[in-house]
Amino acid sequence: MLDKIYRVNMTTMDFSIEEAPAEWMGLGGRGLTSTIVAAEVDPECHPLGPNNKLVFAPGMLSGTSAANSGRNSCGAKSPLTGGIKESNVGGTSAAIMAKLGVKALIIEGMPKEGAPFYHLHITKEKVEFFPVPELVGKNNYEVLDYMLEKYHKKVAVMSIGTPGEMRMNLANISVKDPGGKLRSHGRGGMGAVMGSKKVKCITVDAESYNEITLANPEKFKEASKIFTKTLQENPISGQGLPAFGTNVLVNILNEAGGLPTRNFREGRWEFAENICGETMAENIKARGGKTTHGCHAGCVIQCSQIYNDADGNYLTSGFEYETIWAFGSNAGIQDLDQIAKIDALMDDLGVDSIETGVTLGIAVDAGIVNYGDGEKIYDLIKNDIAKGTPLGRILGGGTHLVGKLYGLVRVPTVKGQGMPAYEPRAVKGQGVTYATSTMGADHTAGYAVATNILNSGGYVDPLKKEGQIILSRNLQIATAAVDSTGMCIFVAFPLLDDPKSLTALVDMINARFGTSLTGDDVTNLGMKILKTERAFNLKAGLTPSDDRLPEFMKYESLPPHNVVWDFTNEELDSFWDF
Amino acid sequence: MLDKIYRVNMTTMDFSIEEAPAEWMGLGGRGLTSTIVAAEVDPECHPLGPNNKLVFAPGMLSGTSAANSGRNSCGAKSPLTGGIKESNVGGTSAAIMAKLGVKALIIEGMPKEGAPFYHLHITKEKVEFFPVPELVGKNNYEVLDYMLEKYHKKVAVMSIGTPGEMRMNLANISVKDPGGKLRSHGRGGMGAVMGSKKVKCITVDAESYNEITLANPEKFKEASKIFTKTLQENPISGQGLPAFGTNVLVNILNEAGGLPTRNFREGRWEFAENICGETMAENIKARGGKTTHGCHAGCVIQCSQIYNDADGNYLTSGFEYETIWAFGSNAGIQDLDQIAKIDALMDDLGVDSIETGVTLGIAVDAGIVNYGDGEKIYDLIKNDIAKGTPLGRILGGGTHLVGKLYGLVRVPTVKGQGMPAYEPRAVKGQGVTYATSTMGADHTAGYAVATNILNSGGYVDPLKKEGQIILSRNLQIATAAVDSTGMCIFVAFPLLDDPKSLTALVDMINARFGTSLTGDDVTNLGMKILKTERAFNLKAGLTPSDDRLPEFMKYESLPPHNVVWDFTNEELDSFWDF
Ligand code: SF4
Ligand code: SF4
Repeated sequence: MLDKIYRVNMTTMDFSIEEAPAEWMGLGGRGLTSTIVAAEVDPECHPLGPNNKLVFAPGMLSGTSAANSGRNSCGAKSPLTGGIKESNVGGTSAAIMAKLGVKALIIEGMPKEGAPFYHLHITKEKVEFFPVPELVGKNNYEVLDYMLEKYHKKVAVMSIGTPGEMRMNLANISVKDPGGKLRSHGRGGMGAVMGSKKVKCITVDAESYNEITLANPEKFKEASKIFTKTLQENPISGQGLPAFGTNVLVNILNEAGGLPTRNFREGRWEFAENICGETMAENIKARGGKTTHGCHAGCVIQCSQIYNDADGNYLTSGFEYETIWAFGSNAGIQDLDQIAKIDALMDDLGVDSIETGVTLGIAVDAGIVNYGDGEKIYDLIKNDIAKGTPLGRILGGGTHLVGKLYGLVRVPTVKGQGMPAYEPRAVKGQGVTYATSTMGADHTAGYAVATNILNSGGYVDPLKKEGQIILSRNLQIATAAVDSTGMCIFVAFPLLDDPKSLTALVDMINARFGTSLTGDDVTNLGMKILKTERAFNLKAGLTPSDDRLPEFMKYESLPPHNVVWDFTNEELDSFWDF
Repeated sequence: MLDKIYRVNMTTMDFSIEEAPAEWMGLGGRGLTSTIVAAEVDPECHPLGPNNKLVFAPGMLSGTSAANSGRNSCGAKSPLTGGIKESNVGGTSAAIMAKLGVKALIIEGMPKEGAPFYHLHITKEKVEFFPVPELVGKNNYEVLDYMLEKYHKKVAVMSIGTPGEMRMNLANISVKDPGGKLRSHGRGGMGAVMGSKKVKCITVDAESYNEITLANPEKFKEASKIFTKTLQENPISGQGLPAFGTNVLVNILNEAGGLPTRNFREGRWEFAENICGETMAENIKARGGKTTHGCHAGCVIQCSQIYNDADGNYLTSGFEYETIWAFGSNAGIQDLDQIAKIDALMDDLGVDSIETGVTLGIAVDAGIVNYGDGEKIYDLIKNDIAKGTPLGRILGGGTHLVGKLYGLVRVPTVKGQGMPAYEPRAVKGQGVTYATSTMGADHTAGYAVATNILNSGGYVDPLKKEGQIILSRNLQIATAAVDSTGMCIFVAFPLLDDPKSLTALVDMINARFGTSLTGDDVTNLGMKILKTERAFNLKAGLTPSDDRLPEFMKYESLPPHNVVWDFTNEELDSFWDF
């Protein structure tokens, strides 16, 4: 019963469980979601209409004992970017789906106007549809409690909060993690797509699954051991991330002059100290949290943490650099605890912390809130976004739409998606990734910060154009492949620096499927995924002129290095010459 | 001193008055604005940033005694569509600019953040800049009074209201008409572009101008006489329009099943009688208004009117079918007087009546207002849009953005612009124009209603696809040329049916400039304009996939004829095969 395609039709309230077609057999994660979306979704369709499809696919190695392999991909045409989207998440859903034999779950169609919201329950034999009017208007933790009680905790849970019900662009799909907290399919409004299909929640049976059958268990075990070792020996994945989490980056980026501040007006913030990873780690130690913590079983890096308040009570976990930056230097909140409260609130509502933070950064320019007014920002999220007041609808539309509605020129987005925590003028390789990624401004799509700032995979000067296109291209190709394995993005650090790491990864895949792929095959897979996504985007109406940073970055120079974005259109377009 | 290019730089607060370059000599109106925008504006620039330009150009025949030649064109990259825009208007500005020798006025650059709003005064020798903090927050009639007093009424006045100051997508540029009322450069957010440049008002000196020098006054007089006669003899321009105004169309479209009703859900409205042209004409007669009235001196059709309330007090003028439809069957208001009050309010604020009405139609679907609640609709415009409350910002963004913010699928726009008063499923030639026009959904760009419904220029069955592409193409080519002459669009009726009309028009142009153009040259001009605009749009990032009607029209059939939009992408793309 392994490797089935589950198809759910929300127009007819029907389902099917099919054998995966031969050409999908070697695929998983992003490789599979993007292939399915490109094959089955009309690129010109309305992303919230009946002809879009929402696809979930665990990674190729998900469900196995391979370290850090528990990521689940979700794909669709994005209501935020108008292009294809893949968003992957930790938590428990990937492993449970993989072990149940769900190679992909495809949700298609759309119920009539006025239909109730549904809960879908996925088991080995069937998909059950339950109308859940009682859960409408509820947020994620309430939905989670309801489902864990109903199924005696033996399920994976994926759900949307009220922003997803309201089909807001910043709505995530939230996934239960091993500790009963939430992880997110963030970016691109995947929660809005789920909401448009009137699916409030999906549960996956965790009781009746089988363990994954490996083609070559011995070889797998051996390769897995080597892979884990390369993760542990790398200074970033083995030390930096476990000690300080991703928030180790605040001081690093601030020092580099690439920490976007005041809606991308400056690259350095005078209050970085208040919110940095070192301060966070001190707080955790003093208050009895946990500095190292995994977002899914099998993670050996453990960049997550448990962050408590001054009285030692739980505040949040999975407290990421991106979130801390967005509400910190960009929107001005100086109090790390306040950002933590906002983080927990956003988990409960299921809104993308980057898009929400970047939106609140530009909301300062729109006159909606004052820079650094954390109380008001908390209130805007809790009482406006969550409830869909007019102001909440505006903010719920994300950075790009706030810019449109208020006639603003300084709008830090690409393809409509808000820019993450690295100033592209000062970390130019990252800027190339923002500009050219099929996903819109996305930091994980080709994390050039590694080589521009962290000296991982060599060094390319962040302030110069030279070498950045090739750097970003190679990283984006590698990332597309890694995103298909089910591995978390941080395995990239050893992959970039230690050849044993890639060999071990390829060996694991071969041992899992009985294939004989090489490193080149992995690169080819990455290229094929990018080209498939790009072709979809072009058919959807995106063009090379969408592979651009916002114009203001070309004529407004960024302190402290006083740099502008100086790539020509031709240089950016050359990204796709492969 | 004739035929100068006036250039105003709002970054440096400087101006120049230049000879028009040779290649612009034969151009005017839309032909000139589109040529200048395409030549000088980076298609990838932010429409509200320093690199967009706002261009005004009177028509080729403006300022002469030719009938209906008083239209002024305004062009820029549109913040609404992201493509090129031309919007032309009656009123007094075209003739005054032409007689002063202003072939085009180009406003470029942008003052720094926090700069005051300016009033620009254009004279024969110079451009004066006056900061006008006292006019900020004021609407058009107050600005008009101020300027007429300052200049003893001897000026043309172009201004924006608060929506333009706030750079809202539905902001118009308003122009004084001969009766001291307002006409609008509507559609596409030209008022937002003017607002972004911090120009509150432009006045043009009407005291020091010369009369236009004609190359061949005798020939001109003769051709002009013939042209006027063809206008008067045509049943539509000679009888229908003068008697009932454009609102003659309510009953005609309702009968044809092409009157968009309830946000484009049906093609016929049970209350059409209440708002139709015949009811309007009765009211006017009973209340002492005027059924025939011109929007500029020299109009011999006089489709405008003076519409009074039941007590005989002035309510509005230039009360168009489009406005009456948008607030009538589409948004549900059954009381014509209430629509008239809204019309007058919109003139004062300077908002596009089509975009505003279509936005309020979809606002019903968004749950913002109930269908037909005219009181609330008036209030939303007066107290939300005009004041920029959060709800006002939402509505001020136009139909497309309301659709985005509320996650709606039934969004009647093309290239982001709200669809005018003809159901494209039931008037398919008009649908081709909406889909393919470089301007977004625009009814005047190629008015296929003429031949689909009014039997003007032959007959093409409105419910069938056959012949519509060619019809729309020929009309769009002709219209682009007519929009360059300074003629109002309604001269098209005799042009379509009476060969003498076109000959006379060409003769007038030749007599004005001393050229020897033929009818073919006029067609070639139209084709060249369309191709110039299209090339700009493609470089700006629009693609063939923007030449589409909204997807829902393909799968949702429209009563009473139960028709869907059934053009294939290939058919639509063939529009550009010329
Ligand atoms: S390193 Fe961080 S993101 Fe990756 S699997 Fe572990 S906890 Fe999750
Ligand atoms: S026919 Fe109507 S629109 Fe045309 S010039 Fe006359 S009043 Fe203006």
